[in-house]
Amino acid sequence: MDSTIIYGKNAVIEALEKGEREFNKILISNSVHSDTKIEHIKELARRQGIVYQFVSKEKMNTLEPDGKHQGVIAQIAPIKYVELEDFIEKHKGELSSVVVLDGVEDSHNVGAIMRSCVCAGIKGIIIPSRRGVLVNSTVEKTSAGAVNHIDIIKTNSLVNAIQKLKENDYWVIASDHHAEHNHFDIDYTDMNFVIIMGAEHAGISKSLLKLADFRVKIPMLTNFNSLNVSNATAIILFEYVSQFCKKNKKENKNG
Amino acid sequence: MDSTIIYGKNAVIEALEKGEREFNKILISNSVHSDTKIEHIKELARRQGIVYQFVSKEKMNTLEPDGKHQGVIAQIAPIKYVELEDFIEKHKGELSSVVVLDGVEDSHNVGAIMRSCVCAGIKGIIIPSRRGVLVNSTVEKTSAGAVNHIDIIKTNSLVNAIQKLKENDYWVIASDHHAEHNHFDIDYTDMNFVIIMGAEHAGISKSLLKLADFRVKIPMLTNFNSLNVSNATAIILFEYVSQFCKKNKKENKNG
Repeated sequence: MDSTIIYGKNAVIEALEKGEREFNKILISNSVHSDTKIEHIKELARRQGIVYQFVSKEKMNTLEPDGKHQGVIAQIAPIKYVELEDFIEKHKGELSSVVVLDGVEDSHNVGAIMRSCVCAGIKGIIIPSRRGVLVNSTVEKTSAGAVNHIDIIKTNSLVNAIQKLKENDYWVIASDHHAEHNHFDIDYTDMNFVIIMGAEHAGISKSLLKLADFRVKIPMLTNFNSLNVSNATAIILFEYVSQFCKKNKKENKNG
Repeated sequence: MDSTIIYGKNAVIEALEKGEREFNKILISNSVHSDTKIEHIKELARRQGIVYQFVSKEKMNTLEPDGKHQGVIAQIAPIKYVELEDFIEKHKGELSSVVVLDGVEDSHNVGAIMRSCVCAGIKGIIIPSRRGVLVNSTVEKTSAGAVNHIDIIKTNSLVNAIQKLKENDYWVIASDHHAEHNHFDIDYTDMNFVIIMGAEHAGISKSLLKLADFRVKIPMLTNFNSLNVSNATAIILFEYVSQFCKKNKKENKNG
């Protein structure tokens, strides 16, 4: 079968527990000392009827040359990207939220952003098919399994995708350090929203900025205006989470 | 002289503009096409009387084997760590703030955290001499020059350092996902504070947790409780920034 790899103990455990990915087999280095995590992987594999086998360190390093596999590599089916139309349909009738990555090129950043999105309860992530990073092994690893907990939509045209979301009652927020409003000036809790994040140096493309209903910046307390893009995304998403928690608390008090 | 390297166009420009680091010389790859950034580096070097020379790609790759130098490597004096006593003295009479990294081991995370700290106006970062990461080339690079804009304190004992800060009227906040309070329940704007961040899996050591005046968690909207440590740090720091901005706006209105 067409396959990809995931590696690292936590990433493999996550994928096994979630059970959404089809496993081909699991390779365990025969030179790594077993520990509770590796035993857990073997137990999960046995229960699910997934083959695991012990291979040499050299074989492991050929499959994952950066040497970050921690002695465990799983060969699995590639992630299933979701169609935008299906995504919109699935989340009709509830408040929904999407993060759009416009040209973010560092796999570590994309992986970390996916973790933050899942923690913040974001429903989907849209990435461009050509500019930026697709879901590769590094993204899977740095996402700590988050790729299995969120709908990932791949599109040839971010412009068309965002327009489609606007037509379906999503409000579009662009992160732009020239913006007048701060990210905490928006009330995120009563609308479907799309947050567009741009590449660290280039920012968001003009054609996407034009589609924004709101532009927001993250204020800085010094002139050193240079947040890492995954940190900037986390800051905005958790402003939404804070608002959500505060509102819920208030409603529980009043109700 | 004892020296270290920094690499990448932006990191070198930052260090030249800040002017706080003693340069030995700048090496430029003779196989890289010049652009405005490289011309800017040459111009800054000329003005400051710093030697630059063109060397082969092979020589560059020997000095920085990951190949992320973008054609520019500077040999500079190592960063000067600051003594805790001097730091405390320097910031007496103003509101001060410190981030403590307890065993954070990934250089990319440490670099990204330093960027966020500088953007948020944090005055100092404390790292342990033995557990965790010192300021190496990867930290310098991923910090995008932030290491030159903040006091970095290296200590043999985080416990002693935090106790010293407590004696000097700093309040200690520990990030702990078992905490009862949310990170936004604290008012950061009217005190000197220390925020302790722990390693992603191990968390904060017990001996440090005991010293905390407040323990705070970042609430999640799903069960996927797994933020990247640099993202978690950014979320807490920018809660402080938001509070600071809102308070300032209110005071300006009232005054």
